[in-house]
Amino acid sequence: MEKITLDTIVSLCKRRGFVFQSSEIYGGLASAWDYGPLGVELKNNIQRFWWNEMVRSRRNIVGLDAAILMHPRVWEASGHVENFHDPLVDCKQCKSRFRADQIDLTAACPVCGTKDSFTEPRQFNLMFKTHLGPVEDESNIVYLRPETAQGIYVNYKNCVQTSRVKVPFGIAQVGKAFRNEIVTKNFIFRTCEFEQMEMQFFVKPSEDKKWFDYWKETRMEYYKKLGIRPDKLRFHPHGPDELAHYAKEAVDIEYEFPMGWRELEGIHNRTDFDLSRHSEYSGKDLTYLDDQTKERFVPYIIETSAGLTRSVLMVLSDAYEEETLENGETRTVLRFHPLIAPVTVGVFPLVKKDGLSEYAMELEEELREHFSTFYDESGAIGRRYRRQDEIGTPYCITVDYDTKENDTVTLRYRDSMEQVRIHKNEIVDTIKQAIKDYKRVGV
Amino acid sequence: MEKITLDTIVSLCKRRGFVFQSSEIYGGLASAWDYGPLGVELKNNIQRFWWNEMVRSRRNIVGLDAAILMHPRVWEASGHVENFHDPLVDCKQCKSRFRADQIDLTAACPVCGTKDSFTEPRQFNLMFKTHLGPVEDESNIVYLRPETAQGIYVNYKNCVQTSRVKVPFGIAQVGKAFRNEIVTKNFIFRTCEFEQMEMQFFVKPSEDKKWFDYWKETRMEYYKKLGIRPDKLRFHPHGPDELAHYAKEAVDIEYEFPMGWRELEGIHNRTDFDLSRHSEYSGKDLTYLDDQTKERFVPYIIETSAGLTRSVLMVLSDAYEEETLENGETRTVLRFHPLIAPVTVGVFPLVKKDGLSEYAMELEEELREHFSTFYDESGAIGRRYRRQDEIGTPYCITVDYDTKENDTVTLRYRDSMEQVRIHKNEIVDTIKQAIKDYKRVGV
Repeated sequence: MEKITLDTIVSLCKRRGFVFQSSEIYGGLASAWDYGPLGVELKNNIQRFWWNEMVRSRRNIVGLDAAILMHPRVWEASGHVENFHDPLVDCKQCKSRFRADQIDLTAACPVCGTKDSFTEPRQFNLMFKTHLGPVEDESNIVYLRPETAQGIYVNYKNCVQTSRVKVPFGIAQVGKAFRNEIVTKNFIFRTCEFEQMEMQFFVKPSEDKKWFDYWKETRMEYYKKLGIRPDKLRFHPHGPDELAHYAKEAVDIEYEFPMGWRELEGIHNRTDFDLSRHSEYSGKDLTYLDDQTKERFVPYIIETSAGLTRSVLMVLSDAYEEETLENGETRTVLRFHPLIAPVTVGVFPLVKKDGLSEYAMELEEELREHFSTFYDESGAIGRRYRRQDEIGTPYCITVDYDTKENDTVTLRYRDSMEQVRIHKNEIVDTIKQAIKDYKRVGV
Repeated sequence: MEKITLDTIVSLCKRRGFVFQSSEIYGGLASAWDYGPLGVELKNNIQRFWWNEMVRSRRNIVGLDAAILMHPRVWEASGHVENFHDPLVDCKQCKSRFRADQIDLTAACPVCGTKDSFTEPRQFNLMFKTHLGPVEDESNIVYLRPETAQGIYVNYKNCVQTSRVKVPFGIAQVGKAFRNEIVTKNFIFRTCEFEQMEMQFFVKPSEDKKWFDYWKETRMEYYKKLGIRPDKLRFHPHGPDELAHYAKEAVDIEYEFPMGWRELEGIHNRTDFDLSRHSEYSGKDLTYLDDQTKERFVPYIIETSAGLTRSVLMVLSDAYEEETLENGETRTVLRFHPLIAPVTVGVFPLVKKDGLSEYAMELEEELREHFSTFYDESGAIGRRYRRQDEIGTPYCITVDYDTKENDTVTLRYRDSMEQVRIHKNEIVDTIKQAIKDYKRVGV
């Protein structure tokens, strides 16, 4: 198969209702995207998969959902007010604006071609600023959070007190964050409004290395469990010059997107930086008392910070295949893991007449209790299969004349295109087993 | 039972980790709240219940998730830039600020007592304003959406084209919205940052009344299905003087909260107001072509707009009971419907020794595949039951010495406190059946 391009993915997303440009009828809003009927299901499924892996299946991790608007002191303590900047320059001639670290300041303006036209670089804070209350002055500035992590840190004591979790434990959160960056390409990979899936794991200071290594491996395993091709995943450890000011050790999990290797998730040893800063700025005691050893300490934090919006792009890129069939035709297929496919089971009557539609509709309603389903009766059966292939539906059921005789149906598998005849009563168990046993072809 | 107060609910929420004040360690942020470990599960369960009822179980409703930041023209078309105001006055003496329609302007200032001290009322727009890009000027103002509905309207054509839905059909969305209101009471009932669950249903203009009535009844049934006490629910039809400028007919579903009857959800016949305005402002054709009758029209919209955050408060208020037991003790119990309880099954070893903990932990892991579970081994068994009652866990399983002999466990029901002995292999089916058959006592 040829290398796929980002444009191919963007075009499929628009055509099939995964992702639309925000406010498209008004010409769009830069770097904002809306998730359509299939996109919202895919995103929710990834989110639920993450939540199950990180919270529901673990005794020592609890969930949280903090507000986007927080007290402004939070962002002083975190360092964002002081340090969260991009250096920008303007072209004096054409007024275009650039990131100073992304262009050659000694060259001519890339837009109008004027030489020596740039202003001195100035620092612009990347937090969106607004005002709480009707008056717009310094006293009531609030920011849209640029990361979800701080919501966890300021609630850490509340979680310890109400959930009786003990170090080592984690707090997990999925939510939106906002960064006022100049971004105009790479689709949903980097956007001003985005969603994060973060888990902050609180450990004894002396056990930081052990837990950093644990989460590094565990998070990589998560992506394989999600069905991502292992050869498209790699670690990128941060060298000393790449480390953020709060981090003692850091590694990215990278995926090979159509536009190259990019970060999917960061795993950081943030030490006691965050809790110490919040303790200093709030005046509150944020130490933890180990009731076994009677030691009192500020926990170290191992952070796993994944992008949900970019996970959607990753999953789409990874699933996309154009396959040449024996008859020479090409079929487009999204090989989603069945656990995250927007539709799990398509249900079709072979033809619309002779009561087949009614039978198929009733069957689809029965299957809804177990799976996400889609009913389709329009067009030739082959075209209906292709439409489901293109949105990644792993299983299709067709009701035909034999069904009315003996309650058997055709079950068709997306990946192999194999069709088997099974009794209606076997559908649920057969598909549930197939989901458990799912393995991507050729991987 | 005595009438419960809002304070009782607030206190339980804080104590057990349902809801915390936002940025509490910094003194809190007005009217912003964070959902703790139990709150996030409860909120997610309500959201999933709504999504299942409105999207997953219907062939003619699709989902959407539009961005919070939209093109500013959207809010001109919707009328929010022009009309979404509160009239405010200041006390010239003490600088306190009030909503002009909520105080007696001829009386003395309620804060400092000065008479004739109010400024003339001024209109303040309730949308939060920020700037996209580094320069803060008029040209790049964007708003935090004050409602999710407009994200649906501007995507209606995209949804029709990609999902092949046909009138009558709906588009559903759950998401955050922001209103810069002065709110300081009633906990999570009304907050500047909140979540909505909206469904916009597109119909033939001549069928608006029929669908308005359908959704009015259907949405009331939804609350009963969610387990809410019917005598706490009522309709409040809007009189001609209450109707919003876009509405031809409107009805609220109200719930009797501890602070009185309040709106839970609004059902509106918005006519073709929204699509006509967006067509006018964008210059795009937003008509719909009926491929059967070849009629072309701008669909009418029936809107069902429910608050997710206030649904959390409703569910907590409705579930809360203080029950006097036979021995004179009081137990606090949250009678959540099992489908939305943060924890479905608590699993306990009777004692920590003799391998009972190991057995119970293994059992809990097996049950996770089917239910949201919680393992607890600390304190007397009676106290553990009470702790689960207080967070609304409908079923508890206790592992004791007999379990090791014959693999039977005790299943204890929250509402009746009845305990039955069942075989370990019967747990999943017994609880699944109990969830299906669930009926609240005394209702």
